[in-house]
Amino acid sequence: MSKIMAINAGSSSLKFQLLEMPEEKIVTKGIVERIGMNDAVFTIEVEGDKKKDTTAIDDHAKAVEILLDKLISLGIINSLDEIEGIGHRVVHGGEKFNDSVLITEDVINGIDEVSDLAPLHNPANLVGINAFRKILPNVPSVAVFDTAFHQTMPEDSYLYSLPYEYYENYGIRKYGFHGTSHKYVSERAADMLGRPVENLRLISCHLGNGASIAAIEGGKSVDTSMGFTPLAGVTMGTRSGNIDPSLIPYIMDKANMTAEEVMDVLNKKSGMLALSGFSSDLRDIELKAKDGHDRAALALNVFTSRIHKYIGSYATRMSGLDAIIFTAGIGENSDEIRSRVLHGLEFMGVYWDPMLNKTRGKEAFINYPHSPVKVMVIPTNEEVMIARDTLRLSSK
Amino acid sequence: MSKIMAINAGSSSLKFQLLEMPEEKIVTKGIVERIGMNDAVFTIEVEGDKKKDTTAIDDHAKAVEILLDKLISLGIINSLDEIEGIGHRVVHGGEKFNDSVLITEDVINGIDEVSDLAPLHNPANLVGINAFRKILPNVPSVAVFDTAFHQTMPEDSYLYSLPYEYYENYGIRKYGFHGTSHKYVSERAADMLGRPVENLRLISCHLGNGASIAAIEGGKSVDTSMGFTPLAGVTMGTRSGNIDPSLIPYIMDKANMTAEEVMDVLNKKSGMLALSGFSSDLRDIELKAKDGHDRAALALNVFTSRIHKYIGSYATRMSGLDAIIFTAGIGENSDEIRSRVLHGLEFMGVYWDPMLNKTRGKEAFINYPHSPVKVMVIPTNEEVMIARDTLRLSSK
Repeated sequence: MSKIMAINAGSSSLKFQLLEMPEEKIVTKGIVERIGMNDAVFTIEVEGDKKKDTTAIDDHAKAVEILLDKLISLGIINSLDEIEGIGHRVVHGGEKFNDSVLITEDVINGIDEVSDLAPLHNPANLVGINAFRKILPNVPSVAVFDTAFHQTMPEDSYLYSLPYEYYENYGIRKYGFHGTSHKYVSERAADMLGRPVENLRLISCHLGNGASIAAIEGGKSVDTSMGFTPLAGVTMGTRSGNIDPSLIPYIMDKANMTAEEVMDVLNKKSGMLALSGFSSDLRDIELKAKDGHDRAALALNVFTSRIHKYIGSYATRMSGLDAIIFTAGIGENSDEIRSRVLHGLEFMGVYWDPMLNKTRGKEAFINYPHSPVKVMVIPTNEEVMIARDTLRLSSK
Repeated sequence: MSKIMAINAGSSSLKFQLLEMPEEKIVTKGIVERIGMNDAVFTIEVEGDKKKDTTAIDDHAKAVEILLDKLISLGIINSLDEIEGIGHRVVHGGEKFNDSVLITEDVINGIDEVSDLAPLHNPANLVGINAFRKILPNVPSVAVFDTAFHQTMPEDSYLYSLPYEYYENYGIRKYGFHGTSHKYVSERAADMLGRPVENLRLISCHLGNGASIAAIEGGKSVDTSMGFTPLAGVTMGTRSGNIDPSLIPYIMDKANMTAEEVMDVLNKKSGMLALSGFSSDLRDIELKAKDGHDRAALALNVFTSRIHKYIGSYATRMSGLDAIIFTAGIGENSDEIRSRVLHGLEFMGVYWDPMLNKTRGKEAFINYPHSPVKVMVIPTNEEVMIARDTLRLSSK
């Protein structure tokens, strides 16, 4: 029996989850926010209750110290020795990392080298890694990359039709993201179907505030909607997804903006927020749309039609389809979105049951029994994937 | 019996075709190139022979004068009175023009107003229009827009997930192009199928040096791969098609370019040319790929996989499919490209015959008789569409 800590470090935050492995049972979880401030907030769940402390926390190393002290003082663990591995979510592994990896100096340098590809995320992930290495130098730590699962994509999926030297010199290609989630749900889907993942053609729809679709053939990602960055693909909460690239200089010219300012609009002021005109939160938008709000209805139409078309595109990519998976906040909980996305897919063998589709937040089949293509709701669990890989690599 | 002139004016060129209507018979055709130079070239086909003259041609009006003189001196027509209408291809009609239109001062102003959306093309088209109005003031002229056919797209197809005021203030939306071609082949397809176009769901693949895919439901375009400009969509001869928008500032930064320079790369130095590394011409690429040239094979893979995925996407958009149409240079002539694009579509009812697929440049069905989805090769004919609309509108 091992306890594994799964960590997701941001520039001023540290999300943690302690799991009992291989049972995959959550021991505790929480988050440290506003790191670097005098009023940092430490939140930890103990037996279902959230405990909150506000205190000054200088840096991530201090946040880790406080976290470990709390685990002992709250009686969650008796000794730090119980923690047998630390798994860190790392956003970008570039082409260097096609699997999770035991962290060494070389790995740290590798993550740093690809930071150029994720300048907001990788440096923050490294701060988290280094904080734990400082406080618990003898506990193995593992890096789990958001991009790794998609490294199996073939060249015709990942290459843009751009000068080839941009790929060779600048690393310009499709990387894809949400890999840990897509991998988790594809493995769960195989379990639920009782079939080896090697024999399955799956489309995984990770629909949260960020959203991506993946085509998974034989357990391997063969295509995905996000690209060089998480901006590409379908419409998202505040991100535009794909647009005509010519629009960037056009907007720069018309709205008198720099390229960076346009990127800021595309990342933070577009998507569902821009279409609806009032919110990036799908729940607000669904409510207003029911009240007859035109722009809310428009946002739903655009969001779901983009996903709908990706399903056709990826079914074609794999010459057919065994199952469609819905996951993440929206995918797990919104029957409205699922029903719009699934509408009219009978021609490719998708027959879904509106009653079963009412399910929320738990694993379920929502297809009719006779449907050749199965449709599943599967809550994602990136922490479990991180813990699994950490256990696998740290016990080697 | 009427003679109609179909005109496609570029900034220094004037393509013409004289048609006998309603028989749709070509009387003559040709092109004036290098207008504005001392060594302009006038080429005209007379009974299958090409006649070429090199002479100074100051402007488009002069080119039109020479053209009309030639028609008489070569005995092609006896009098200018035989020309009953002039149809002009105009690239961009914005949201103003959803059909061809008889040209008036208002229409000229309208075309000028949307020139912002096609700064290279609309002004050149206007030069052609004005040249004919000057020389033949009493002959009705008609504008036929590349964008008009796609004006039936619903909002969820044409709106980007960008701030809504960009649409309202700057006209930022998907317009789509090649509309005249998509419309022509969809009408021919209905004829060949012996079914009313109103009952058909068609995917039209216009594959030339520029390439676009259209979803045509009930005779109306409901989606298309090109966007605000002809840069978007699938990989083309020298155009990138869709890329992650974040790549534009990234390339600007890495390659030290302005946004305009990046656009130049995306429009003129990307696509098949960039992938193959040696040519934008598919024929060259196919030959080299057969000789085992890796980058040529890569270019074919990327080009065809992008089209392949659009077919799935648009079949889904229409909840099924009655026929796939291939047209334009590559679509009409390359069995290699068609076979790759059609590969593995059996799951959606597409069964095609490799023997029939060997057809080149003429109308043909290439599906097996039992195939629920038909597959057709249909040579496009934008001039005939222009002449039809010109006849229809000028005889009103």
